[in-house]
Amino acid sequence: MVEKRDRLYEGKSKILYTTDNPDELVQVFKDDATAFNGVKKGTIAGKGELNCAITARIFGLLGAAGTPSHFIRVLSPREMLVQRLTIIPVEVVMRNIVAGSLSKRMGRPEGEKLPRAILETYLKSDELGDPPINDEHIEVFGLATPAQLAEMKTMARQINAVLVPFFRERGIDLVDYKLEFGVNPRGQLVLGDEITPDGCRLWDSATHEKMDKDRFRRDLGKVEEAYQEVARRVLG
Amino acid sequence: MVEKRDRLYEGKSKILYTTDNPDELVQVFKDDATAFNGVKKGTIAGKGELNCAITARIFGLLGAAGTPSHFIRVLSPREMLVQRLTIIPVEVVMRNIVAGSLSKRMGRPEGEKLPRAILETYLKSDELGDPPINDEHIEVFGLATPAQLAEMKTMARQINAVLVPFFRERGIDLVDYKLEFGVNPRGQLVLGDEITPDGCRLWDSATHEKMDKDRFRRDLGKVEEAYQEVARRVLG
Repeated sequence: MVEKRDRLYEGKSKILYTTDNPDELVQVFKDDATAFNGVKKGTIAGKGELNCAITARIFGLLGAAGTPSHFIRVLSPREMLVQRLTIIPVEVVMRNIVAGSLSKRMGRPEGEKLPRAILETYLKSDELGDPPINDEHIEVFGLATPAQLAEMKTMARQINAVLVPFFRERGIDLVDYKLEFGVNPRGQLVLGDEITPDGCRLWDSATHEKMDKDRFRRDLGKVEEAYQEVARRVLG
Repeated sequence: MVEKRDRLYEGKSKILYTTDNPDELVQVFKDDATAFNGVKKGTIAGKGELNCAITARIFGLLGAAGTPSHFIRVLSPREMLVQRLTIIPVEVVMRNIVAGSLSKRMGRPEGEKLPRAILETYLKSDELGDPPINDEHIEVFGLATPAQLAEMKTMARQINAVLVPFFRERGIDLVDYKLEFGVNPRGQLVLGDEITPDGCRLWDSATHEKMDKDRFRRDLGKVEEAYQEVARRVLG
């Protein structure tokens, strides 16, 4: 039985608690939803449980395919035991189809299929609005070592090679998604955070309907139903 | 005697004319100044002649050091003969000291000396506000070939290795600057555009006074005097 001790960190959609094991934390998924760097706030009923189950399934899948993550095991419907990480303050975004900020930035239509996936990096900083950065910013400002950056990129490509077909078989286009990495207590670089419709763009392959947090961001309605449908397809 | 024929292109600070030689253009430097992507407009008296002379001096210096440019020769105080280029739509920014957008983006103080120069790339697009891009955007969207990008980066580093000491000997810190590249009629990748206080941040090494277009952007006054002083030191 794992007991939660101190609240180590509370973010927009998750809380991390310490446990009696200094190398392990409890990650609790909340129903709270935010968008536009916290400007828009709301709740998506049942999201915490759905996202916990989706992340467990995907991190399990990636682990089996050779990509380590912080995930240890599920503790309760919205709680999982994870390794304690020193988070690398670089968000990696993988893009298979043009959407969102890439569409705006490059003046390209949403829905344009990319000939190969684009990997982007952003500084993890709510205060600065997660600005885009390149390899030289990461190296010169010491955000990650060159070896860590190279490993993050290799892992992100491996993850994409697993997830694109996984979602395609379930009738979902994996448009783009955010990955976070950290160093675990054994000094190993692993995938952290979560992989859920909060941080992924997921489009129904047949109807092109959005099945992710864009339904909340853009007031498209049927937000809960979209998360439930993703969970049904991912867990089924 | 070179005759200007058709006006091929008019930009914010320069005009390009065709000549009777299809491989050569006349580049005319204007006194017009703009900032914030054209939102702020004005005139800096004498700027055209000063920038023409400064660019000729610097492109001559770089050519002697082995970095080819489009510059052929000066025709008149504000006109130079240049090679006709197919411009690569990627702006390269070299940064030796934190200032401007890098300071805002990364939350770092202006004036912070970087342990090594940072090279950034931006999409050359007035319409999109010259957004920052990384190597993968350049490759996947076909803005430059991987070989061209590698060559642009090598040339930018070589240029920086020449220009930092050149300015330092003249009591000027070369803070950051923009470079543009293109392919000339012989298929060679060369430096294009200009190198002037319009596109460089230049700070007096002793007083840290700004000697560049930031005086115009930020309404600091003595704009003409700053350009004249840069020309005096660069040409002297």
